[in-house]
Amino acid sequence: MTDERTIDEAEAERHRAKMAKRKAVQDAEVAGKTVEKGLLIVNTGPGKGKSTAAFGLALRMLGYGRRVGVVQFIKGAWHSGEQDALARFGDLVSWHTMGEGFTWETQDLKRDIAAAQAAWARALELMADPAIGLVVLDELNIALRYDYLDLDKVVAALKARREDLHVVVTGRNAKPALVEAADLVTEMGATKHHFAAGVKAQKGIEF
Amino acid sequence: MTDERTIDEAEAERHRAKMAKRKAVQDAEVAGKTVEKGLLIVNTGPGKGKSTAAFGLALRMLGYGRRVGVVQFIKGAWHSGEQDALARFGDLVSWHTMGEGFTWETQDLKRDIAAAQAAWARALELMADPAIGLVVLDELNIALRYDYLDLDKVVAALKARREDLHVVVTGRNAKPALVEAADLVTEMGATKHHFAAGVKAQKGIEF
Repeated sequence: MTDERTIDEAEAERHRAKMAKRKAVQDAEVAGKTVEKGLLIVNTGPGKGKSTAAFGLALRMLGYGRRVGVVQFIKGAWHSGEQDALARFGDLVSWHTMGEGFTWETQDLKRDIAAAQAAWARALELMADPAIGLVVLDELNIALRYDYLDLDKVVAALKARREDLHVVVTGRNAKPALVEAADLVTEMGATKHHFAAGVKAQKGIEF
Repeated sequence: MTDERTIDEAEAERHRAKMAKRKAVQDAEVAGKTVEKGLLIVNTGPGKGKSTAAFGLALRMLGYGRRVGVVQFIKGAWHSGEQDALARFGDLVSWHTMGEGFTWETQDLKRDIAAAQAAWARALELMADPAIGLVVLDELNIALRYDYLDLDKVVAALKARREDLHVVVTGRNAKPALVEAADLVTEMGATKHHFAAGVKAQKGIEF
């Protein structure tokens, strides 16, 4: 590939000086951050990538040989690619699909509540396991939104987590009390979505 | 765990009726989406999760036994957890770290441009490989933002990709022409960030 851009010495030097200054700022900023702690992370918003980013974090943890726990609160009726992929990590992943599908699939409120409570009980077990470095609570926000679980109790338990435990909660419409308790909250915004153009959910992308 | 919420029959029935209606709407919506195509996906915005979600997508693809190509345009000076984790998938992952670190680390504009161009040449090779189902172009937006690559040529090549190839581009400040060409654009917004509270970048979370 040809180099379309020619850089003269003056431009190269201006760039070097600017970047040296920027590096000093960055280094000072990094040096000012000294706290290490298990984070409560919330991925919310209407856009794509809430669960996907949580599983990406799981992948990162696994890369360092740390154990990961996953509880799926809502999804469960279908099979997912990430589940198969994480199976390759054997004992490092403790995966629990506790949901029975979307609320409009079960159409049974009592059953939905019972499933959410069983999932939460499993989440508490995983959070108590000192071998686990990251717990993914996939779609917990949905269970909280529909009052399947007691918000105050859930937030209190998340705040009381082990000091070195990272927890990621996903799902739209995160409750304000959870956002308040979290260390890191990312709102995934749907700037543009292919579903609007009639493209269907595709293997490897949506599931 | 005790069930704090009691559901009477009337409430259960109202829920069932509401969810049955919602299922009809959902089913109709799903049925209306029939197109299958390789997507051009852009993860941008100031929040966390742009690269992480891209690697989560890679994981999902790998779960279905599809091959994944990764080109890192900027990062490269450090080791990452996801790289180690993906190594477990052997030949299914073709990983190329072509960056030499942040621009303020190299402080050398010519070198940055040369690295970006070599990375783009590698990206074109991966995109041309029919065995690959997903190509992750990590931090390509940064290389475009600093004009290390010709935007028009890059967008034209991405648009001309194979019909069944998914491509994910990550990085802040996605160029409008790229957003225009994309099928799916997610803006990761930083609602709350632990760096602001003095918490440092931690193994398994940030890298």
